[in-house]
Amino acid sequence: MKTLKVIKIGGNIINDSIALSGFLQQFSTIDGPKILVHGGGKLATKLAKQMQVDVQMIDGRRVTNAETLDIITMVYAGKINKNIIAELQKNKCNSIGFTGADGNTIVAGKRTVKEIDYGFVGDIVNINTAVLELLLNANVTPVFCAITHDEKGQLLNTNADTIASELAIAFAKKFQTELYYCFEKNGVLLDVNNDDSVVEHINHKKYQELLKEGVITDGMLPKLNNCFHAIEKNVDKVCIGKSEMLYNQNSKFTTIQAS
Amino acid sequence: MKTLKVIKIGGNIINDSIALSGFLQQFSTIDGPKILVHGGGKLATKLAKQMQVDVQMIDGRRVTNAETLDIITMVYAGKINKNIIAELQKNKCNSIGFTGADGNTIVAGKRTVKEIDYGFVGDIVNINTAVLELLLNANVTPVFCAITHDEKGQLLNTNADTIASELAIAFAKKFQTELYYCFEKNGVLLDVNNDDSVVEHINHKKYQELLKEGVITDGMLPKLNNCFHAIEKNVDKVCIGKSEMLYNQNSKFTTIQAS
Repeated sequence: MKTLKVIKIGGNIINDSIALSGFLQQFSTIDGPKILVHGGGKLATKLAKQMQVDVQMIDGRRVTNAETLDIITMVYAGKINKNIIAELQKNKCNSIGFTGADGNTIVAGKRTVKEIDYGFVGDIVNINTAVLELLLNANVTPVFCAITHDEKGQLLNTNADTIASELAIAFAKKFQTELYYCFEKNGVLLDVNNDDSVVEHINHKKYQELLKEGVITDGMLPKLNNCFHAIEKNVDKVCIGKSEMLYNQNSKFTTIQAS
Repeated sequence: MKTLKVIKIGGNIINDSIALSGFLQQFSTIDGPKILVHGGGKLATKLAKQMQVDVQMIDGRRVTNAETLDIITMVYAGKINKNIIAELQKNKCNSIGFTGADGNTIVAGKRTVKEIDYGFVGDIVNINTAVLELLLNANVTPVFCAITHDEKGQLLNTNADTIASELAIAFAKKFQTELYYCFEKNGVLLDVNNDDSVVEHINHKKYQELLKEGVITDGMLPKLNNCFHAIEKNVDKVCIGKSEMLYNQNSKFTTIQAS
Protein backbone atom coordinates (compact mmCIF):
# COMPACT_ATOMS: atom_id res chain seq x y z
CA MET A 1 0.00 0.00 0.00
CA LYS A 2 1.33 3.44 -0.95
CA THR A 3 1.82 6.09 1.74
CA LEU A 4 -0.16 9.34 1.49
CA LYS A 5 1.04 12.35 3.48
CA VAL A 6 -1.56 14.95 4.46
CA ILE A 7 0.26 18.08 5.61
CA LYS A 8 -1.35 21.06 7.31
CA ILE A 9 0.41 24.41 7.66
CA GLY A 10 -0.83 27.33 9.73
CA GLY A 11 -0.34 31.02 10.34
CA ASN A 12 3.33 30.89 11.34
CA ILE A 13 4.20 29.84 7.78
CA ILE A 14 1.36 31.52 5.85
CA ASN A 15 2.01 34.95 7.40
CA ASP A 16 5.73 34.94 6.53
CA SER A 17 6.43 34.97 2.80
CA ILE A 18 10.06 33.89 3.21
CA ALA A 19 9.11 31.00 5.52
CA LEU A 20 6.33 30.03 3.10
CA SER A 21 8.64 30.10 0.10
CA GLY A 22 11.22 27.97 1.92
CA PHE A 23 8.58 25.53 3.09
CA LEU A 24 7.10 25.11 -0.39
CA GLN A 25 10.53 24.43 -1.83
CA GLN A 26 11.08 21.63 0.71
CA PHE A 27 7.49 20.40 0.36
CA SER A 28 8.06 19.99 -3.39
CA THR A 29 10.88 17.53 -2.75
CA ILE A 30 8.69 15.13 -0.74
CA ASP A 31 8.28 11.92 -2.74
CA GLY A 32 4.99 10.15 -3.24
CA PRO A 33 1.36 11.28 -3.04
CA LYS A 34 0.72 14.25 -0.77
CA ILE A 35 -2.00 16.76 0.03
CA LEU A 36 -1.38 20.23 1.47
CA VAL A 37 -3.95 22.01 3.65
CA HIS A 38 -3.45 25.64 4.63
CA GLY A 39 -5.10 27.98 7.07
CA GLY A 40 -5.77 31.62 6.40
CA GLY A 41 -3.34 33.50 8.60
CA LYS A 42 -3.71 37.19 9.31
CA LEU A 43 -4.45 38.34 5.77
CA ALA A 44 -8.23 37.97 6.04
CA THR A 45 -8.36 40.16 9.15
CA LYS A 46 -6.15 42.71 7.44
CA LEU A 47 -8.39 42.84 4.36
CA ALA A 48 -11.53 43.11 6.54
CA LYS A 49 -10.01 46.17 8.22
CA GLN A 50 -9.03 47.65 4.87
CA MET A 51 -12.59 47.12 3.58
CA GLN A 52 -14.00 48.41 6.88
CA VAL A 53 -15.97 45.23 7.48
CA ASP A 54 -16.75 44.69 11.15
CA VAL A 55 -15.98 41.35 12.76
CA GLN A 56 -19.14 40.13 14.49
CA MET A 57 -18.64 38.15 17.71
CA ILE A 58 -21.05 36.02 19.76
CA ASP A 59 -19.80 34.61 23.08
CA GLY A 60 -16.25 35.37 22.05
CA ARG A 61 -16.52 33.43 18.79
CA ARG A 62 -16.29 35.00 15.37
CA VAL A 63 -19.46 34.87 13.30
CA THR A 64 -18.94 34.34 9.58
CA ASN A 65 -21.48 36.66 7.98
CA ALA A 66 -21.85 37.01 4.19
CA GLU A 67 -19.28 39.82 3.96
CA THR A 68 -16.74 37.88 6.04
CA LEU A 69 -17.30 34.75 3.94
CA ASP A 70 -16.59 36.81 0.81
CA ILE A 71 -13.35 38.05 2.33
CA ILE A 72 -12.33 34.56 3.39
CA THR A 73 -13.11 33.21 -0.08
CA MET A 74 -11.07 35.97 -1.71
CA VAL A 75 -8.09 35.62 0.63
CA TYR A 76 -7.96 31.86 1.29
CA ALA A 77 -9.10 30.46 -2.10
CA GLY A 78 -7.78 33.41 -4.12
CA LYS A 79 -4.67 35.18 -2.93
CA ILE A 80 -3.10 32.59 -0.60
CA ASN A 81 -4.08 29.40 -2.44
CA LYS A 82 -3.19 30.59 -5.95
CA ASN A 83 0.16 32.07 -4.91
CA ILE A 84 1.00 28.76 -3.23
CA ILE A 85 0.12 26.93 -6.47
CA ALA A 86 2.27 29.30 -8.57
CA GLU A 87 5.19 28.81 -6.17
CA LEU A 88 4.79 25.00 -6.18
CA GLN A 89 4.81 25.02 -9.99
CA LYS A 90 8.06 27.02 -9.87
CA ASN A 91 9.45 24.16 -7.77
CA LYS A 92 8.18 21.61 -10.34
CA CYS A 93 5.51 20.28 -7.99
CA ASN A 94 2.41 20.00 -10.15
CA SER A 95 -0.54 21.03 -7.99
CA ILE A 96 -4.16 22.19 -8.12
CA GLY A 97 -5.88 24.47 -5.62
CA PHE A 98 -9.08 23.22 -3.99
CA THR A 99 -11.96 24.33 -1.87
CA GLY A 100 -14.33 21.56 -0.80
CA ALA A 101 -16.66 22.75 -3.59
CA ASP A 102 -14.07 21.91 -6.26
CA GLY A 103 -14.66 18.36 -7.43
CA ASN A 104 -17.37 18.20 -4.73
CA THR A 105 -14.53 16.94 -2.54
CA ILE A 106 -15.69 18.16 0.90
CA VAL A 107 -19.37 18.44 1.72
CA ALA A 108 -20.33 20.22 4.95
CA GLY A 109 -23.45 21.21 6.84
CA LYS A 110 -24.02 24.74 8.14
CA ARG A 111 -23.44 24.77 11.89
CA THR A 112 -26.24 25.78 14.22
CA VAL A 113 -25.61 25.33 17.92
CA LYS A 114 -28.78 25.74 19.96
CA GLU A 115 -29.89 29.33 19.49
CA ILE A 116 -26.54 30.55 18.19
CA ASP A 117 -26.08 30.87 14.44
CA TYR A 118 -22.37 31.07 13.68
CA GLY A 119 -23.12 32.15 10.14
CA PHE A 120 -21.48 30.45 7.20
CA VAL A 121 -19.46 27.91 9.17
CA GLY A 122 -19.56 24.30 8.04
CA ASP A 123 -19.01 20.95 9.73
CA ILE A 124 -17.83 18.22 7.39
CA VAL A 125 -20.38 15.53 6.58
CA ASN A 126 -18.79 13.78 3.61
CA ILE A 127 -15.55 13.55 1.61
CA ASN A 128 -15.48 12.36 -2.01
CA THR A 129 -12.05 10.97 -2.79
CA ALA A 130 -12.49 9.84 -6.42
CA VAL A 131 -11.30 13.01 -8.19
CA LEU A 132 -8.45 13.50 -5.71
CA GLU A 133 -7.29 9.91 -6.18
CA LEU A 134 -7.26 10.42 -9.95
CA LEU A 135 -5.00 13.45 -9.49
CA LEU A 136 -2.75 11.85 -6.87
CA ASN A 137 -2.20 8.90 -9.20
CA ALA A 138 -1.26 11.38 -11.94
CA ASN A 139 1.35 12.89 -9.59
CA VAL A 140 -0.70 16.07 -9.03
CA THR A 141 -0.82 17.51 -5.49
CA PRO A 142 -4.16 18.91 -4.25
CA VAL A 143 -3.80 22.04 -2.10
CA PHE A 144 -6.81 22.77 0.11
CA CYS A 145 -7.83 26.01 1.73
CA ALA A 146 -10.26 26.08 4.67
CA ILE A 147 -13.48 26.37 2.65
CA THR A 148 -16.14 23.72 2.05
CA HIS A 149 -19.66 23.77 0.55
CA ASP A 150 -23.11 22.36 1.28
CA GLU A 151 -24.00 21.02 -2.21
CA LYS A 152 -26.77 23.63 -2.30
CA GLY A 153 -24.64 26.44 -3.69
CA GLN A 154 -23.32 27.77 -0.39
CA LEU A 155 -19.62 28.03 0.43
CA LEU A 156 -18.77 27.50 4.12
CA ASN A 157 -15.84 28.37 6.37
CA THR A 158 -14.36 25.21 7.91
CA ASN A 159 -11.45 24.69 10.31
CA ALA A 160 -8.26 23.74 8.42
CA ASP A 161 -7.12 21.24 11.11
CA THR A 162 -10.40 19.39 10.70
CA ILE A 163 -10.15 19.43 6.90
CA ALA A 164 -6.69 17.85 7.18
CA SER A 165 -7.77 15.11 9.61
CA GLU A 166 -10.97 14.30 7.70
CA LEU A 167 -9.03 14.06 4.42
CA ALA A 168 -6.52 11.71 6.07
CA ILE A 169 -9.36 9.60 7.49
CA ALA A 170 -11.16 9.43 4.13
CA PHE A 171 -7.99 8.17 2.45
CA ALA A 172 -7.10 5.65 5.19
CA LYS A 173 -8.89 2.89 3.25
CA LYS A 174 -6.84 3.44 0.09
CA PHE A 175 -3.45 4.50 1.38
CA GLN A 176 -1.21 4.09 4.39
CA THR A 177 -1.98 7.58 5.68
CA GLU A 178 0.19 9.98 7.64
CA LEU A 179 -1.09 13.29 8.97
CA TYR A 180 1.33 16.15 9.74
CA TYR A 181 0.34 19.25 11.71
CA CYS A 182 3.00 21.93 11.27
CA PHE A 183 2.91 24.73 13.82
CA GLU A 184 5.30 27.03 15.69
CA LYS A 185 6.47 24.55 18.35
CA ASN A 186 8.44 21.30 18.26
CA GLY A 187 5.36 19.31 19.27
CA VAL A 188 3.83 18.42 22.63
CA LEU A 189 6.16 19.91 25.24
CA LEU A 190 6.59 18.80 28.87
CA ASP A 191 7.54 22.41 29.62
CA VAL A 192 5.81 24.94 27.35
CA ASN A 193 8.76 27.31 27.73
CA ASN A 194 11.34 24.74 26.68
CA ASP A 195 11.20 23.76 23.02
CA ASP A 196 13.59 20.86 23.71
CA SER A 197 11.20 19.15 26.14
CA VAL A 198 9.36 17.33 23.35
CA VAL A 199 7.29 14.24 24.10
CA GLU A 200 8.41 12.19 21.11
CA HIS A 201 5.82 9.42 21.20
CA ILE A 202 2.27 9.46 22.45
CA ASN A 203 -0.18 6.57 22.41
CA HIS A 204 -3.54 6.27 24.17
CA LYS A 205 -1.96 5.21 27.47
CA LYS A 206 0.67 7.93 27.41
CA TYR A 207 -2.02 10.50 26.54
CA GLN A 208 -4.03 9.60 29.64
CA GLU A 209 -0.88 9.98 31.76
CA LEU A 210 -0.06 13.37 30.26
CA LEU A 211 -3.63 14.53 30.85
CA LYS A 212 -3.44 13.44 34.51
CA GLU A 213 -0.09 15.19 34.94
CA GLY A 214 -1.59 18.40 33.50
CA VAL A 215 1.04 18.55 30.73
CA ILE A 216 -1.54 19.07 28.00
CA THR A 217 -2.38 22.76 27.89
CA ASP A 218 -5.74 24.20 26.87
CA GLY A 219 -4.54 25.19 23.41
CA MET A 220 -3.16 21.72 22.78
CA LEU A 221 -6.25 19.79 23.89
CA PRO A 222 -8.47 20.23 20.79
CA LYS A 223 -5.43 19.61 18.55
CA LEU A 224 -4.65 16.32 20.31
CA ASN A 225 -8.30 15.23 20.39
CA ASN A 226 -8.30 15.81 16.63
CA CYS A 227 -5.16 13.65 16.33
CA PHE A 228 -6.58 10.75 18.36
CA HIS A 229 -9.83 10.95 16.39
CA ALA A 230 -7.77 10.40 13.23
CA ILE A 231 -5.85 7.53 14.81
CA GLU A 232 -9.10 5.86 15.88
CA LYS A 233 -10.32 6.17 12.28
CA ASN A 234 -7.29 4.23 10.95
CA VAL A 235 -4.87 7.01 10.10
CA ASP A 236 -1.49 5.33 10.64
CA LYS A 237 0.26 8.14 12.45
CA VAL A 238 -0.08 11.81 13.22
CA CYS A 239 2.95 14.05 13.68
CA ILE A 240 2.94 17.46 15.33
CA GLY A 241 5.86 19.85 15.19
CA LYS A 242 7.68 22.46 13.16
CA SER A 243 7.57 21.96 9.40
CA GLU A 244 11.24 20.90 9.55
CA MET A 245 10.01 17.50 10.77
CA LEU A 246 9.03 16.75 7.15
CA TYR A 247 12.54 16.94 5.77
CA ASN A 248 15.11 17.36 8.55
CA GLN A 249 15.93 13.97 10.03
CA ASN A 250 17.45 15.52 13.15
CA SER A 251 14.43 17.58 14.12
CA LYS A 252 12.35 16.63 17.14
CA PHE A 253 8.58 16.34 16.96
CA THR A 254 5.71 14.42 18.50
CA THR A 255 4.43 11.25 16.85
CA ILE A 256 1.00 9.97 17.83
CA GLN A 257 0.14 6.37 17.11
CA ALA A 258 -2.42 3.91 18.43
CA SER A 259 0.12 1.88 20.39
CA MET B 1 -14.15 11.98 -32.11
CA LYS B 2 -15.95 13.50 -29.14
CA THR B 3 -17.04 17.14 -29.22
CA LEU B 4 -15.60 19.54 -26.64
CA LYS B 5 -17.38 22.83 -26.01
CA VAL B 6 -15.30 25.75 -24.71
CA ILE B 7 -17.67 28.44 -23.46
CA LYS B 8 -16.68 31.95 -22.46
CA ILE B 9 -18.97 34.24 -20.48
CA GLY B 10 -18.35 37.92 -19.81
CA GLY B 11 -19.46 40.83 -17.70
CA ASN B 12 -23.12 40.86 -18.74
CA ILE B 13 -23.57 37.49 -17.01
CA ILE B 14 -20.92 37.76 -14.26
CA ASN B 15 -22.22 41.12 -13.00
CA ASP B 16 -25.82 39.93 -12.65
CA SER B 17 -26.26 37.21 -10.00
CA ILE B 18 -29.70 36.18 -11.30
CA ALA B 19 -28.44 35.94 -14.89
CA LEU B 20 -25.38 34.01 -13.69
CA SER B 21 -27.47 31.59 -11.66
CA GLY B 22 -29.80 30.95 -14.62
CA PHE B 23 -26.89 30.52 -16.97
CA LEU B 24 -25.13 28.02 -14.70
CA GLN B 25 -28.31 25.99 -14.39
CA GLN B 26 -28.56 25.75 -18.19
CA PHE B 27 -24.81 25.20 -18.57
CA SER B 28 -25.07 22.20 -16.24
CA THR B 29 -27.50 20.48 -18.60
CA ILE B 30 -25.09 20.58 -21.56
CA ASP B 31 -24.04 17.02 -22.37
CA GLY B 32 -20.49 15.96 -23.06
CA PRO B 33 -17.11 17.45 -22.16
CA LYS B 34 -17.09 21.21 -21.64
CA ILE B 35 -14.85 23.95 -20.27
CA LEU B 36 -16.12 27.27 -18.88
CA VAL B 37 -14.03 30.45 -19.02
CA HIS B 38 -15.17 33.56 -17.20
CA GLY B 39 -14.07 37.18 -17.20
CA GLY B 40 -13.97 39.34 -14.12
CA GLY B 41 -16.78 41.81 -14.52
CA LYS B 42 -17.05 44.93 -12.42
CA LEU B 43 -16.28 43.35 -9.04
CA ALA B 44 -12.52 43.88 -9.23
CA THR B 45 -12.94 47.61 -9.91
CA LYS B 46 -15.43 47.85 -7.04
CA LEU B 47 -13.03 46.13 -4.63
CA ALA B 48 -10.13 48.33 -5.78
CA LYS B 49 -12.20 51.42 -4.95
CA GLN B 50 -13.20 49.95 -1.57
CA MET B 51 -9.53 49.25 -0.81
CA GLN B 52 -8.57 52.68 -2.18
CA VAL B 53 -6.16 51.19 -4.70
CA ASP B 54 -5.55 53.51 -7.63
CA VAL B 55 -5.85 52.21 -11.16
CA GLN B 56 -2.67 53.06 -13.03
CA MET B 57 -3.05 53.88 -16.73
CA ILE B 58 -0.46 54.20 -19.53
CA ASP B 59 -1.67 55.36 -22.95
CA GLY B 60 -5.23 54.61 -21.92
CA ARG B 61 -4.45 51.01 -20.95
CA ARG B 62 -4.69 49.66 -17.45
CA VAL B 63 -1.43 48.61 -15.83
CA THR B 64 -1.62 45.56 -13.59
CA ASN B 65 0.61 46.45 -10.66
CA ALA B 66 1.18 44.10 -7.69
CA GLU B 67 -1.80 45.47 -5.74
CA THR B 68 -4.12 45.18 -8.74
CA LEU B 69 -2.94 41.63 -9.41
CA ASP B 70 -3.75 40.74 -5.78
CA ILE B 71 -7.24 42.17 -6.20
CA ILE B 72 -7.76 40.31 -9.47
CA THR B 73 -6.55 37.07 -7.90
CA MET B 74 -8.90 37.50 -4.95
CA VAL B 75 -11.92 38.44 -7.04
CA TYR B 76 -11.48 36.26 -10.15
CA ALA B 77 -9.92 33.10 -8.65
CA GLY B 78 -11.56 33.51 -5.23
CA LYS B 79 -14.98 35.08 -5.05
CA ILE B 80 -16.27 34.68 -8.62
CA ASN B 81 -14.68 31.33 -9.49
CA LYS B 82 -15.52 29.55 -6.23
CA ASN B 83 -19.10 30.77 -6.15
CA ILE B 84 -19.52 29.52 -9.72
CA ILE B 85 -18.16 26.12 -8.64
CA ALA B 86 -20.51 25.94 -5.63
CA GLU B 87 -23.46 26.83 -7.88
CA LEU B 88 -22.47 24.24 -10.50
CA GLN B 89 -22.24 21.57 -7.79
CA LYS B 90 -25.76 22.53 -6.70
CA ASN B 91 -26.81 21.79 -10.28
CA LYS B 92 -24.97 18.42 -10.17
CA CYS B 93 -22.29 19.58 -12.58
CA ASN B 94 -19.04 18.35 -11.05
CA SER B 95 -16.45 21.05 -11.67
CA ILE B 96 -13.07 22.34 -10.51
CA GLY B 97 -11.90 25.96 -10.59
CA PHE B 98 -8.66 26.73 -12.40
CA THR B 99 -6.14 29.44 -12.95
CA GLY B 100 -3.45 28.65 -15.48
CA ALA B 101 -1.15 27.89 -12.52
CA ASP B 102 -3.39 25.02 -11.38
CA GLY B 103 -2.16 21.83 -13.01
CA ASN B 104 0.34 24.04 -14.85
CA THR B 105 -2.40 24.26 -17.48
CA ILE B 106 -1.66 27.70 -18.99
CA VAL B 107 1.86 29.07 -19.12
CA ALA B 108 2.31 32.71 -20.09
CA GLY B 109 5.11 35.22 -20.52
CA LYS B 110 5.01 38.67 -18.95
CA ARG B 111 4.20 41.23 -21.62
CA THR B 112 6.64 44.00 -22.40
CA VAL B 113 5.86 46.18 -25.40
CA LYS B 114 8.76 48.41 -26.35
CA GLU B 115 9.32 50.75 -23.42
CA ILE B 116 5.92 50.13 -21.86
CA ASP B 117 5.67 47.68 -18.99
CA TYR B 118 2.02 46.69 -18.57
CA GLY B 119 2.80 45.07 -15.23
CA PHE B 120 1.66 41.58 -14.46
CA VAL B 121 -0.05 40.88 -17.77
CA GLY B 122 0.69 37.59 -19.48
CA ASP B 123 0.59 36.36 -23.06
CA ILE B 124 0.00 32.64 -23.41
CA VAL B 125 3.00 30.60 -24.54
CA ASN B 126 1.90 27.04 -23.78
CA ILE B 127 -1.10 24.98 -22.73
CA ASN B 128 -0.75 21.60 -21.00
CA THR B 129 -3.86 19.55 -21.65
CA ALA B 130 -3.02 16.28 -19.84
CA VAL B 131 -4.57 17.05 -16.44
CA LEU B 132 -7.62 18.69 -18.05
CA GLU B 133 -8.15 15.68 -20.30
CA LEU B 134 -8.02 13.39 -17.27
CA LEU B 135 -10.76 15.45 -15.61
CA LEU B 136 -12.90 15.82 -18.75
CA ASN B 137 -12.82 12.05 -19.21
CA ALA B 138 -13.97 11.69 -15.58
CA ASN B 139 -16.92 13.99 -16.37
CA VAL B 140 -15.44 16.91 -14.40
CA THR B 141 -15.78 20.40 -15.89
CA PRO B 142 -12.80 22.78 -15.58
CA VAL B 143 -13.80 26.40 -14.92
CA PHE B 144 -11.10 28.94 -15.78
CA CYS B 145 -10.71 32.49 -14.59
CA ALA B 146 -8.53 34.98 -16.45
CA ILE B 147 -5.27 34.28 -14.61
CA THR B 148 -2.19 32.44 -15.86
CA HIS B 149 1.37 31.98 -14.55
CA ASP B 150 4.93 32.07 -15.82
CA GLU B 151 6.26 28.82 -14.21
CA LYS B 152 8.59 31.03 -12.15
CA GLY B 153 6.13 31.65 -9.32
CA GLN B 154 4.39 34.68 -10.82
CA LEU B 155 0.66 34.85 -11.48
CA LEU B 156 -0.34 36.94 -14.50
CA ASN B 157 -3.52 38.65 -15.68
CA THR B 158 -4.56 37.30 -19.10
CA ASN B 159 -7.50 38.16 -21.37
CA ALA B 160 -10.37 35.69 -20.90
CA ASP B 161 -11.27 35.66 -24.64
CA THR B 162 -7.72 34.60 -25.44
CA ILE B 163 -7.72 31.93 -22.72
CA ALA B 164 -10.90 30.48 -24.26
CA SER B 165 -9.55 30.47 -27.82
CA GLU B 166 -6.15 29.06 -26.84
CA LEU B 167 -7.80 26.28 -24.80
CA ALA B 168 -10.01 25.41 -27.79
CA ILE B 169 -6.97 25.41 -30.09
CA ALA B 170 -4.95 23.21 -27.71
CA PHE B 171 -7.76 20.64 -27.61
CA ALA B 172 -8.43 20.68 -31.37
CA LYS B 173 -6.09 17.69 -31.83
CA LYS B 174 -7.97 15.53 -29.34
CA PHE B 175 -11.59 16.63 -29.73
CA GLN B 176 -13.90 18.11 -32.31
CA THR B 177 -13.79 21.56 -30.72
CA GLU B 178 -16.45 24.26 -30.59
CA LEU B 179 -15.81 27.70 -29.11
CA TYR B 180 -18.69 29.84 -27.82
CA TYR B 181 -18.34 33.53 -26.97
CA CYS B 182 -21.35 34.66 -24.96
CA PHE B 183 -21.88 38.40 -24.81
CA GLU B 184 -24.71 40.94 -24.70
CA LYS B 185 -25.66 40.88 -28.39
CA ASN B 186 -27.06 38.27 -30.73
CA GLY B 187 -23.79 38.08 -32.65
CA VAL B 188 -22.35 40.08 -35.56
CA LEU B 189 -25.07 42.57 -36.54
CA LEU B 190 -25.56 44.28 -39.93
CA ASP B 191 -27.12 47.16 -38.01
CA VAL B 192 -25.68 47.61 -34.49
CA ASN B 193 -29.00 49.05 -33.30
CA ASN B 194 -31.05 46.11 -34.53
CA ASP B 195 -30.50 42.89 -32.59
CA ASP B 196 -32.43 40.96 -35.27
CA SER B 197 -29.98 41.85 -38.04
CA VAL B 198 -27.68 38.93 -37.20
CA VAL B 199 -25.22 37.64 -39.78
CA GLU B 200 -25.79 33.95 -39.16
CA HIS B 201 -22.79 32.50 -41.00
CA ILE B 202 -19.38 33.98 -41.62
CA ASN B 203 -16.51 32.33 -43.47
CA HIS B 204 -13.27 33.90 -44.72
CA LYS B 205 -14.88 35.20 -47.91
CA LYS B 206 -17.90 36.64 -46.13
CA TYR B 207 -15.62 38.23 -43.54
CA GLN B 208 -13.70 40.11 -46.24
CA GLU B 209 -16.99 41.35 -47.70
CA LEU B 210 -18.26 42.53 -44.32
CA LEU B 211 -14.98 44.35 -43.69
CA LYS B 212 -15.25 46.09 -47.07
CA GLU B 213 -18.83 47.10 -46.37
CA GLY B 214 -17.77 48.54 -43.00
CA VAL B 215 -20.20 46.31 -41.10
CA ILE B 216 -17.54 45.16 -38.61
CA THR B 217 -17.30 47.79 -35.90
CA ASP B 218 -14.15 48.61 -33.94
CA GLY B 219 -15.26 46.67 -30.85
CA MET B 220 -16.02 43.58 -32.93
CA LEU B 221 -12.75 43.53 -34.87
CA PRO B 222 -10.43 42.01 -32.20
CA LYS B 223 -13.16 39.52 -31.25
CA LEU B 224 -13.52 38.34 -34.85
CA ASN B 225 -9.78 38.21 -35.42
CA ASN B 226 -9.62 35.98 -32.34
CA CYS B 227 -12.34 33.76 -33.84
CA PHE B 228 -10.60 33.39 -37.20
CA HIS B 229 -7.31 32.68 -35.46
CA ALA B 230 -9.04 29.74 -33.71
CA ILE B 231 -10.59 28.54 -37.00
CA GLU B 232 -7.19 28.66 -38.70
CA LYS B 233 -5.81 26.55 -35.85
CA ASN B 234 -8.37 23.78 -36.47
CA VAL B 235 -11.15 24.73 -34.07
CA ASP B 236 -14.25 23.42 -35.87
CA LYS B 237 -16.53 26.34 -35.30
CA VAL B 238 -16.82 29.50 -33.25
CA CYS B 239 -20.20 30.90 -32.21
CA ILE B 240 -20.84 34.43 -30.99
CA GLY B 241 -24.10 35.51 -29.39
CA LYS B 242 -26.16 35.62 -26.25
CA SER B 243 -25.74 32.64 -23.90
CA GLU B 244 -29.19 31.42 -25.01
CA MET B 245 -27.52 30.12 -28.18
CA LEU B 246 -26.20 27.22 -26.07
CA TYR B 247 -29.60 25.81 -25.19
CA ASN B 248 -32.38 27.65 -27.06
CA GLN B 249 -32.74 26.21 -30.55
CA ASN B 250 -34.70 29.23 -31.77
CA SER B 251 -32.11 31.83 -30.80
CA LYS B 252 -30.12 33.61 -33.48
CA PHE B 253 -26.34 33.88 -33.32
CA THR B 254 -23.30 34.09 -35.55
CA THR B 255 -21.42 30.94 -36.53
CA ILE B 256 -17.92 31.28 -37.88
CA GLN B 257 -16.43 28.43 -39.85
CA ALA B 258 -13.61 28.04 -42.35
CA SER B 259 -15.93 27.60 -45.32
